[in-house]
Amino acid sequence: MASIFTKIVNGEIPCYKVAETSEFLAFLDINPNSKGHTLCIPKKEVDKIFDLDEATYNGLMSFSRKVALAIEKVMPCERVGVSVIGLEVPHAHVHLIPLHSMEDARFIKKTSLTSEEFQEIAKSIQDNFLA
Amino acid sequence: MASIFTKIVNGEIPCYKVAETSEFLAFLDINPNSKGHTLCIPKKEVDKIFDLDEATYNGLMSFSRKVALAIEKVMPCERVGVSVIGLEVPHAHVHLIPLHSMEDARFIKKTSLTSEEFQEIAKSIQDNFLA
Repeated sequence: MASIFTKIVNGEIPCYKVAETSEFLAFLDINPNSKGHTLCIPKKEVDKIFDLDEATYNGLMSFSRKVALAIEKVMPCERVGVSVIGLEVPHAHVHLIPLHSMEDARFIKKTSLTSEEFQEIAKSIQDNFLA
Repeated sequence: MASIFTKIVNGEIPCYKVAETSEFLAFLDINPNSKGHTLCIPKKEVDKIFDLDEATYNGLMSFSRKVALAIEKVMPCERVGVSVIGLEVPHAHVHLIPLHSMEDARFIKKTSLTSEEFQEIAKSIQDNFLA
């Protein structure tokens, strides 16, 4: 069965899109640790990040860097953190999380946002993404 | 002042070395989330990972992948997770963490190991690192 992220890639499930290339997609995490928390994925469905072929892995990390630089421009934070865990959705994904304190990296405290806030954040990151 | 990681690079502070190239170093975290928790750093001292120049960032992520593949071969775990936080040591570092559950990704629960255990783990990862 297609992963929830493959359904997002295919447009079967909506997302707040942040950036897209032919191989990769970035969109907002709808259960964010902090405002601007973004997921970067390969369109190709592979469960574990270190099972990606070398070129796709390198492409994903390079894409994630460009997305992180856009996030840094628009989301006030100490820095943008990175997490790859993957115990829940079996489709490799890189979390980019605007960090204000260690708590934002722990996936315990969550932030509630309205649909309008998600849209506004996604657009502001999108506008600053340099492919 | 040189960061604690620069002191490790310079051999002023010892470490349980896992892998090394001309530009990068990997060594065990001495306050690990789980057995095999490893740090990958650029030898060049830069605080924030997304402030690294593009080539160094890409090199660090590629080096981290090779270290992760070696960790996966020798440390029993669900998968190897990745975290970049950096609120404590101002020298970019990639945490590679053998994950058994979400708790291992949270930096709350820590694991105690003896010097002999650290040495044995470092050697087993080192033996499986393919540059």
